[in-house]
Amino acid sequence: MRIANLDGRLVLRHPDGVTDVEAASDGRFPADPQAVFSRWDEFTAWAGDLREPRAEPLDPSRLKAPVPRPSQVFAIGMNYAGHAAEGGLPLPLEPAVFTKFPTSITGPADEVKLPTSTVDWEAELVVVIGRRAVRVDAARAWDHVAGITVGQDLSERTRQLVGVPPQFSIGKSFPGFGPIGPEIVTPDELTDRDDLELGCSVNGEVVQHARTGDLVFPVASLVERLSAILPLTPGDLIFTGTPSGVGHSRSPQRYLAPGDVLETWISGVGRLRTTFAEGHRHVSRTA
Amino acid sequence: MRIANLDGRLVLRHPDGVTDVEAASDGRFPADPQAVFSRWDEFTAWAGDLREPRAEPLDPSRLKAPVPRPSQVFAIGMNYAGHAAEGGLPLPLEPAVFTKFPTSITGPADEVKLPTSTVDWEAELVVVIGRRAVRVDAARAWDHVAGITVGQDLSERTRQLVGVPPQFSIGKSFPGFGPIGPEIVTPDELTDRDDLELGCSVNGEVVQHARTGDLVFPVASLVERLSAILPLTPGDLIFTGTPSGVGHSRSPQRYLAPGDVLETWISGVGRLRTTFAEGHRHVSRTA
Repeated sequence: MRIANLDGRLVLRHPDGVTDVEAASDGRFPADPQAVFSRWDEFTAWAGDLREPRAEPLDPSRLKAPVPRPSQVFAIGMNYAGHAAEGGLPLPLEPAVFTKFPTSITGPADEVKLPTSTVDWEAELVVVIGRRAVRVDAARAWDHVAGITVGQDLSERTRQLVGVPPQFSIGKSFPGFGPIGPEIVTPDELTDRDDLELGCSVNGEVVQHARTGDLVFPVASLVERLSAILPLTPGDLIFTGTPSGVGHSRSPQRYLAPGDVLETWISGVGRLRTTFAEGHRHVSRTA
Repeated sequence: MRIANLDGRLVLRHPDGVTDVEAASDGRFPADPQAVFSRWDEFTAWAGDLREPRAEPLDPSRLKAPVPRPSQVFAIGMNYAGHAAEGGLPLPLEPAVFTKFPTSITGPADEVKLPTSTVDWEAELVVVIGRRAVRVDAARAWDHVAGITVGQDLSERTRQLVGVPPQFSIGKSFPGFGPIGPEIVTPDELTDRDDLELGCSVNGEVVQHARTGDLVFPVASLVERLSAILPLTPGDLIFTGTPSGVGHSRSPQRYLAPGDVLETWISGVGRLRTTFAEGHRHVSRTA
């Protein structure tokens, strides 16, 4: 199953279009895409029984973030060996966890305003929690995942790297710095949910390309290790980390500029198209 | 004005008791304490006009977190010179920002389960946002603050210090690691909102004692610098940082144990009373 957020309304996605969930369920499920995750089992049972739903054509430009108001956003640093190496950091013994503050979440076709000239890309697989997880073993972890989607962990490197320790959470939380979408794909749709091809391109040039099979802490391990500490709640997100190829680690360094088009994809899951424009200028103190 | 959360219901606090807001407003304002911040101006105008509200006696053991489900929780590290020094870290050039994940928030009279033997105290002033803040100057910052409350930034030092960079967000987000309350005090109630005495004691022995006048980035500066990056939204929290005196920096080191009573106070604002019990054991990998 695939679900999406069409102008603020939860829809089921078919090859030939979309079905409005509130209408098709006679109001049993509300339109708010954030509300469905707290009734995920009930919702998937209903959707699975739905016969020949009436589909409407989809205008992709109207798609919004499929999880618009997550309560908790976990983001994982240094979770591919190549990216840890290019950043000069050791492989973590435990997942390195920061947050992208929820106001940074934006849709799959949105324009993002650049606050500085040092904004970088980070293609990521994003997990959406569908069932509360408390001390869940890796072997059962996928049972708590509603689905996955494509994400970008956009990163303002100057603010991120001010001070000791570095400031991952705030440097990656400017408005629009968390594009996700275009839809949520349930794990059963995927041939190998633990080894998906992902990448991103800037103006058509591929800058990151990897497989989630190379994750240091794969999805099931992240659910296990996070849920060992705190409850993962329905609608929470996990940005699972980015592979090598970020702009900050290139020589010369390379960043996003107004007019750039960033495309981010996971094979079999979907593709984001993020455009950039000049934003309100932000200046950080630096040493 | 002082407001609190009594068993999940928003109440006004008086010297002689509490007034239920939903009842006193004939349903104009809902009982949910989290809902009031998005209508803060309207609420304070109504509450200011309220004449001789009927007060009921207060049982303090029924008080819950006055902000039960914040959308964004900002927490500031190394924001008192003495605490940065005892941790061996330089003073930050910009606020060092992490999060306490929202599931860590708990009430002012709650028992907290200890997952390890290295849990530490951190007394803090906590700011509650009452009006959306986008690029607000320090001079106008307090206009966006609904009020302040007392908080503890409880910290599991082993998980916090696994790896490079250290893991502030996850190490400080075990369930119950963010006690707040007992009430929210509006800034007009305070003689000097920028220089309040705060501290905490363990089993009656004072272990932290300082003044918020010593904050490296005071409240107004935090609102200015955070809102320069992202929107602060009604009901968001800012844990403003802890002064010196944490257990981890003592010689010998000292941590919280089952049966301990931690009292945390800010003069003129209130006092938390947190008790501790043995919890489900958590083990982190360490180098």
